[in-house]
Amino acid sequence: MLAGFVRTHRHVRRLEGSRVILAGDLARGKVGLVAGGGSGHEPALIGYVGAGLLGAVVAGEVFASPPAGEVVKAIDAVDTGAGVLLLIGNYAGDVINFEMAMESARAAGHRVELQVVTDDVAAGTADIRSRRGLAGSFFVWKAAGASAASGAALDEVRRVAQKANESTRTMGVASHPGTVPGTDRPLFAIPDDQIEIGVGHGEPGLRRISVRPVDAIVDELVEHLVSAEPSGGLGSEVATLVNGLGATPLIELYVVQRRLVENLEGRGTIVHRSFVGNYYTALEMAGFSVALLGLDGELRALIDAPASSAHFSQPASS
Amino acid sequence: MLAGFVRTHRHVRRLEGSRVILAGDLARGKVGLVAGGGSGHEPALIGYVGAGLLGAVVAGEVFASPPAGEVVKAIDAVDTGAGVLLLIGNYAGDVINFEMAMESARAAGHRVELQVVTDDVAAGTADIRSRRGLAGSFFVWKAAGASAASGAALDEVRRVAQKANESTRTMGVASHPGTVPGTDRPLFAIPDDQIEIGVGHGEPGLRRISVRPVDAIVDELVEHLVSAEPSGGLGSEVATLVNGLGATPLIELYVVQRRLVENLEGRGTIVHRSFVGNYYTALEMAGFSVALLGLDGELRALIDAPASSAHFSQPASS
Repeated sequence: MLAGFVRTHRHVRRLEGSRVILAGDLARGKVGLVAGGGSGHEPALIGYVGAGLLGAVVAGEVFASPPAGEVVKAIDAVDTGAGVLLLIGNYAGDVINFEMAMESARAAGHRVELQVVTDDVAAGTADIRSRRGLAGSFFVWKAAGASAASGAALDEVRRVAQKANESTRTMGVASHPGTVPGTDRPLFAIPDDQIEIGVGHGEPGLRRISVRPVDAIVDELVEHLVSAEPSGGLGSEVATLVNGLGATPLIELYVVQRRLVENLEGRGTIVHRSFVGNYYTALEMAGFSVALLGLDGELRALIDAPASSAHFSQPASS
Repeated sequence: MLAGFVRTHRHVRRLEGSRVILAGDLARGKVGLVAGGGSGHEPALIGYVGAGLLGAVVAGEVFASPPAGEVVKAIDAVDTGAGVLLLIGNYAGDVINFEMAMESARAAGHRVELQVVTDDVAAGTADIRSRRGLAGSFFVWKAAGASAASGAALDEVRRVAQKANESTRTMGVASHPGTVPGTDRPLFAIPDDQIEIGVGHGEPGLRRISVRPVDAIVDELVEHLVSAEPSGGLGSEVATLVNGLGATPLIELYVVQRRLVENLEGRGTIVHRSFVGNYYTALEMAGFSVALLGLDGELRALIDAPASSAHFSQPASS
């Protein structure tokens, strides 16, 4: 995959002999953003290396954390003097490896901070530190990437990433899990007449419900999202992401989007900007997730800022 | 889908009461490009309405041609004085409806031309008029879109579209067909231990072969593509597209890309530019297609030109 990726996209390169994809044009003197985690979620994470987004991605094996040594290589490569912010989802393997890499890079003289993304509200707990990182991670990359591109200092980019994470909520639903290459059966089983609510990326969810019309599913997801702890967290204006998990046709994601906007506007919520597509998949998992980012003036400007990467581009003032 | 699409992307609008998606910013005095066909292939066709690409798309029901009356509405909307070029795949329903719309719009005073895309080499015939239009259509939209954006006259844009079509060859392979919404079984059946070569978008292919390593499949597709009639058509330099049919993970498409480039370069062919992703799907069909566009200086410049749409963006000089 990495070999094919760098033979397709000219603005990235692979750090020789590594699992690191690097922006070809690193902005000198700006904070470097390094994300990483298991593969099998494409276009996440490698598809978001580029201007206004990530500086480097460390790609693990399918659904497995990359080793700490590879993360250190990425830190070395993107630190042009302003320090490095690490962005990962809340998974044990990633937390261990990236913390280890952070300590090691600090010992070598780099300034490094870490933000763990915890947007999955299916866990239903007020303690967001126990939540997984899901498709809402995109909002954290986008906000932190725009902040870093603006020349903000490391502490400031870290503050923005933390704020974006606290303002993001995601919940998914699936009708079929994916199958890891080399194995011959799906990751878990969902009966044909049921769907599973609260799924992760390749992981089982909270509970099963019978198949029902998509509008009813979207309404249930939104109800979970807006009522999740801590209460009152989203505010009156949001950005939305309807994310395909891999095998759900885009035509269906836009049907989800129609109802999502209808539901939110019916609640008096302003939908400032929307994203629809396969952003953070789990191989050929069938289903989708909805992520909401509560906006204030600062986050709105960061989400609206231009960006350009292999799988996400947004022109200036679009 | 159309309602959700226009609530997501600000640069497009829906022609009121119609099945027409229109670029918000129509370049006055330039040739208007109108594409159309059945839905269920997203991001094609609506995802390619935008600067340097299509001016309007007429979206039919799933896998069904839009009615001629809707095509006439699109022609009316995009004709800003320089005439309109219609671009469709070679399917009986589309050919009938778009030809009918062309006659009707001409009678109303519009200058309209039609280019039918026929890139599917699985038909194995030297008469390219009998071939289907597949994912290689993207190259025709891109070349004609760049030509129209440059201010070329209708005859010239038509010539470019025809040249791009004659220089494009596509062939697909699938392990599972999609299922049309509202029906309860797949469009056709492929045994678990076999794959089907030469498939269309939701349509069966030429023949079945046993499952084999992806490198062997890519090599077989390339052999078909380069040896297809008329012989010698591709030349020494190409653009490539690895297109996912819907349910094939992007990680696998980049594995295909790696082998594709390796194979072509091994033959001494220059790979000038590559595209990888879900460009032209068939609901949740599992599989991929490979399209090659033979390049000369003119087509190279048109493919390299900037473009910006909901699902394809290419900055200037990237």
